[in-house]
Amino acid sequence: MISVDQAVQRIAGAFAPLPAERVAIAEALHRVLADDARAACDQPPAPMSAMDGYAVRSIDAKAGANIPVIGTAPAGKPFAGRVEPNRAVRIFTGGVVPEGADSVVIQEDVDAKGDAIVVKEAPRPGENVRARGLDFRAGDILVERGRRLGPRDIALLAAADLAELSVTRKPRVAIAATGDELSRPGERRKAGGIVASSTYAIQAMVESWGGEAIDVGILPDKPEAYATLPESVRGADLVVTLGGASVGDHDLVQSALLPHGFTLDFWRIAMRPGKPLIFGRLKETPLIGLPGNPVSAMVCAVLFLAPALSAMLGAPYRAPIATARLSTNLKANGKRQDYIRAKLKRDSDALIAEPFALQDSSMQKVFAQADALIVRPIDAPPAHAGDAVEVFLLDHC
Amino acid sequence: MISVDQAVQRIAGAFAPLPAERVAIAEALHRVLADDARAACDQPPAPMSAMDGYAVRSIDAKAGANIPVIGTAPAGKPFAGRVEPNRAVRIFTGGVVPEGADSVVIQEDVDAKGDAIVVKEAPRPGENVRARGLDFRAGDILVERGRRLGPRDIALLAAADLAELSVTRKPRVAIAATGDELSRPGERRKAGGIVASSTYAIQAMVESWGGEAIDVGILPDKPEAYATLPESVRGADLVVTLGGASVGDHDLVQSALLPHGFTLDFWRIAMRPGKPLIFGRLKETPLIGLPGNPVSAMVCAVLFLAPALSAMLGAPYRAPIATARLSTNLKANGKRQDYIRAKLKRDSDALIAEPFALQDSSMQKVFAQADALIVRPIDAPPAHAGDAVEVFLLDHC
Repeated sequence: MISVDQAVQRIAGAFAPLPAERVAIAEALHRVLADDARAACDQPPAPMSAMDGYAVRSIDAKAGANIPVIGTAPAGKPFAGRVEPNRAVRIFTGGVVPEGADSVVIQEDVDAKGDAIVVKEAPRPGENVRARGLDFRAGDILVERGRRLGPRDIALLAAADLAELSVTRKPRVAIAATGDELSRPGERRKAGGIVASSTYAIQAMVESWGGEAIDVGILPDKPEAYATLPESVRGADLVVTLGGASVGDHDLVQSALLPHGFTLDFWRIAMRPGKPLIFGRLKETPLIGLPGNPVSAMVCAVLFLAPALSAMLGAPYRAPIATARLSTNLKANGKRQDYIRAKLKRDSDALIAEPFALQDSSMQKVFAQADALIVRPIDAPPAHAGDAVEVFLLDHC
Repeated sequence: MISVDQAVQRIAGAFAPLPAERVAIAEALHRVLADDARAACDQPPAPMSAMDGYAVRSIDAKAGANIPVIGTAPAGKPFAGRVEPNRAVRIFTGGVVPEGADSVVIQEDVDAKGDAIVVKEAPRPGENVRARGLDFRAGDILVERGRRLGPRDIALLAAADLAELSVTRKPRVAIAATGDELSRPGERRKAGGIVASSTYAIQAMVESWGGEAIDVGILPDKPEAYATLPESVRGADLVVTLGGASVGDHDLVQSALLPHGFTLDFWRIAMRPGKPLIFGRLKETPLIGLPGNPVSAMVCAVLFLAPALSAMLGAPYRAPIATARLSTNLKANGKRQDYIRAKLKRDSDALIAEPFALQDSSMQKVFAQADALIVRPIDAPPAHAGDAVEVFLLDHC
């Protein structure tokens, strides 16, 4: 039996970033950058006006000065000439500040009289002018590799004139449920049977975390059924099995896959819920065997599958851990790291963690309503209301 | 000029939830439930064993009792008969507890001898048995309408035997950029021109918030170009224009759209960045005119477009506001609500907001790196390092 931290390290360490592919910028939302993205242009591309007004030489534009206006410079239509002494060019926000001018006097600070302006309030040198490259320069690294791109990253990289981005290919995760008791939602349920909900849970988690899920079906509880698995998961970067992993007579995944090229790395973790997690390889492809209990399967996915996906995506993984204060007392913990389903509340600055009364690992409703898992280390002494505890946030799962 | 809060209310109030549609549960991730989702089955569907062991009558299973084993009940294969007095059935986790039995003695607590067990540790009545419906009962509301479905919701609703869910149709948002200065990423840029990055920003935000974006192109700065807009946005639930909204000579969107069925609701908001926001209708379709400056456009989208999408999705909107402590002093604020780009850090329990030195609204790189906007109300007095301030979190944008 190994610890949760050891298991995370061994699993994450078994994966390397997948190859890069190029996608159009309009398709790059939530993808992970495979290479540092560098600007292809200066921004602004030239000195630009920050306001509507008049481009002038600040040396000329003293209060009371009367300055002829010799042209206009709206955004996208630069003035062709140069601003000579005691001349002005009408300019608009985003217009290129013409050569010669060094500042923009805003329209509220002049009286416009025919083809001339009278300055009421003198601009400072450089006032209302955005220098070329103020935001970024061609060649600057704007977003670093490993970043999952959000809307503002997309905006910045579009502004930097990048039509395509190099992103990591999406990890393909094949999901095989196992168990005679399982049916699909809406199908006729078996006597005493349940719905294969974990397939849908893991699929949604994989997609939510940036992968592509492939549902390869439900295997019945007989060894022969496993013979075709290596073929049906071909092309996957990771195989996830659900169930058939526990210590009872019906522990099937390992024994049934051994003749088909399965090699085991480890298969028990000192944790609750979720002890019987399998990690190994099916031929070349890494395999994570999650427990059959849906809540255990999801807790293990959150702890172990998420870092595996991050490793394949080349995105740095940091467990979403925060500190919270207990709303109630907790008993001493035993030999397995415990993950207690809890609601979180904010009380002024502090985060308060309130465990659910029912912690049975069959309670999917409780798990869906939880905001976090309170982490109780092995052999933790009793904890008291108000104590600080580590919580694992369930925001993206 | 109206306040930010008034503008949010008027915009959000102009939208109603869109019609519902049914989607397969495997396609429902991140969709918004249109109706309360009720369980179609009890979970567990029958009393079930929480452990591997033996189903017994607790009255029989005293320490030392020798009890014949009359059958097995693995998950998905219920034992056909009944557990009569002084009889046991071999059972596995998830197996149906047969009639007659009221508890499961775990396998570690018996000595198995041929076709019988000798009890070492007596189970309590009900021990290791999950009652029918412990998790939920058919007809229970499991997830309420208006909820954006995460992986654990999907898992719960799959477990409740729902093959399809009723979700709100995705809002269709048509995005029209305007401006002679604009080009597409990777295209030849115009002299003094910039890339139409806001189109990609707003598209990504719309998708990130649960809508569907339709890029209807870049309109040049001439009124005739707007004549076709009502036709090109047909079928959209909302039109977003970018640029052409400011007070200068080049304020086009309103004037150019007036002859084509545009009616104005309001068009100036007391805020910075982003004052010249237009809200109205193009014929029947609501229209939000965002400023041309990309950072202003994104800040306005975060403040006003997100609640509009939530209203169309039927999802309750709550601005992502938190309290943070200032890392530095801030000057008194004027007549516009100010949104200061800032990094957030955690310092033990407290959140620390550190404003960027450069707040110019042309700085897309700064905006991409910001974690939050410090909200400075109209006429706010000077604030000091350590003061508590409201911050608008930029997590999903």
